Amino acid sequence: MSTVIERVIAGDVRTVSRLIRDIDDGIPEVRKTLKNLYAHTGNAYVIGITGSPGVGKSTLVDQMIRHLRKKEKTVGILAVDPTSPFSGGAILGDRVRMQQHATDKGVFIRSMATRGYFGGLTESTRSAVDVLDAMGKEFIIIETVGVGQDEVDVAKSAHTTVIVVIPGMGDDIQAIKAGILEAGDIFAVNKADREGVEKTISDLKMMIDINQRRFNESGWTPPILKMEAIHDKGVAELVEEIGNHKKFIKNSNVELQTRKKKEKIRDELIELVKNRFIHEVLEQLTKSGEFEKAINSVAAGKVDPYSACDNLILPKLNQLK
Amino acid sequence: MSTVIERVIAGDVRTVSRLIRDIDDGIPEVRKTLKNLYAHTGNAYVIGITGSPGVGKSTLVDQMIRHLRKKEKTVGILAVDPTSPFSGGAILGDRVRMQQHATDKGVFIRSMATRGYFGGLTESTRSAVDVLDAMGKEFIIIETVGVGQDEVDVAKSAHTTVIVVIPGMGDDIQAIKAGILEAGDIFAVNKADREGVEKTISDLKMMIDINQRRFNESGWTPPILKMEAIHDKGVAELVEEIGNHKKFIKNSNVELQTRKKKEKIRDELIELVKNRFIHEVLEQLTKSGEFEKAINSVAAGKVDPYSACDNLILPKLNQLK
Repeated sequence: MSTVIERVIAGDVRTVSRLIRDIDDGIPEVRKTLKNLYAHTGNAYVIGITGSPGVGKSTLVDQMIRHLRKKEKTVGILAVDPTSPFSGGAILGDRVRMQQHATDKGVFIRSMATRGYFGGLTESTRSAVDVLDAMGKEFIIIETVGVGQDEVDVAKSAHTTVIVVIPGMGDDIQAIKAGILEAGDIFAVNKADREGVEKTISDLKMMIDINQRRFNESGWTPPILKMEAIHDKGVAELVEEIGNHKKFIKNSNVELQTRKKKEKIRDELIELVKNRFIHEVLEQLTKSGEFEKAINSVAAGKVDPYSACDNLILPKLNQLK
Repeated sequence: MSTVIERVIAGDVRTVSRLIRDIDDGIPEVRKTLKNLYAHTGNAYVIGITGSPGVGKSTLVDQMIRHLRKKEKTVGILAVDPTSPFSGGAILGDRVRMQQHATDKGVFIRSMATRGYFGGLTESTRSAVDVLDAMGKEFIIIETVGVGQDEVDVAKSAHTTVIVVIPGMGDDIQAIKAGILEAGDIFAVNKADREGVEKTISDLKMMIDINQRRFNESGWTPPILKMEAIHDKGVAELVEEIGNHKKFIKNSNVELQTRKKKEKIRDELIELVKNRFIHEVLEQLTKSGEFEKAINSVAAGKVDPYSACDNLILPKLNQLK
């Protein structure tokens, strides 16, 4: 009888699948396994692929898998997808995509669908990355839909973040203003056969120029790459640029590396403390019936929500003093 | 000397602007004002406009303002935009847009840029809606970029949520799977002169059909409207459909209305408790130096982040028992 940890390290697909599902479902017992697994992580290179729906991320990622497999690299893929309780999109997507790599043991694909009140998405994804890392996958691709803050946070936790855009979306100042630019190490302009591709590229160039001060710090200027993922055009170049960025990080000065590492740990700890603490506090308030009472008072117009919140938490905050 | 509350109710633009900026910056003193303001809210009708970057939300909202103004309705607009510390997109956008309505006192436009660690976006937006509500705006439009979870949460806090899409984005299962469908009361297909518009509409129809069970509950089936906002085509129809949905909600059964109201209050209270509590706890951990120590231990490989989190919070959780 081998332990869960041993089976994960041995790359046992069934164990890994179950563990990731437990993470996704927020099963508390999983924390202990993650603790013990942590010592076996830190070897994988994590790539974030982010972009609005419809830019062709899945197709691009599928092609990237093929290129990485040609180089005999093992690959884990996490498609992050806020729960759609109605469409079951994540599971459907998994099934469609798994078929293409079903016989390849060097590839492992999973969707994360976590959606809790407590910012579970970021924590779950990090944990799942740890599992794929411990499993021995050399490259882990996190695919996130959209430009929401959760998704940006997830993308930022990667070593190299690729922002995918398509022509015809960047025709107003909206397209870049969502806090996404600063997360991008490489920009991929997909569906580059479409009208307006040069405009999109020049818009991106301008935005990168304007934000030069960000890049001065690290010394890396994000390249902009044209591609047609569906025809496998430009994908090899993207994989190569990711390799360049990987080397660049490795060769950057130690002080900067340490600072970046600590920033990531800080983000991760805040996330963990936040999720865990709030979960406990809300559970206490729910069990005692205080929470329901507060909702009813606000609904009846007896108290405003801000005072209701005060009434709920001030006694608890006093206990902490 | 009138009070802040009096000036907000009187519609004083300078006071309202400062208050919203303070909310956006997370100034703690603002809570007291919000408490006192709450009794003067609940009159505005809130419309959420959500869609990926580039679908033309700003243009659509600008046209909606014109139509609502023709009906002599006053309008407040909140453009929600996760902070882009580099591009300053929110402020730029504000300036461009304010010009068009600069002389119209019936219109008030602001961007929210809040980005805290603590889910500030949703809370700030709700609070700003309260301010515009107390100010006397009859319609409040919340414009959110992207399909991230924060944005979905914001959209859900509206009375009527409009999802804006454009042709050519719905060509794979990705486009709808991001938890956004269930938030939509009306679907607007903008840029409807583009190729693929019928495909987009039939995809949306199929998705709505598949998810019929959601709509059976309320009895409302989301209409799908074609439009070209830039040429003001279809926008009047959208405004009319929003009116229909408003009437529909008003005439729906009281039990359902009460339940929906309580759900919104629950979400709001969770948000408030979460933000407030975590803020205090992290401040305590930071002040005591414990947080920095934990980061350093993890960075030095002495402890895994999960155990570091336990070490930080278990003593505090014990105090709460």
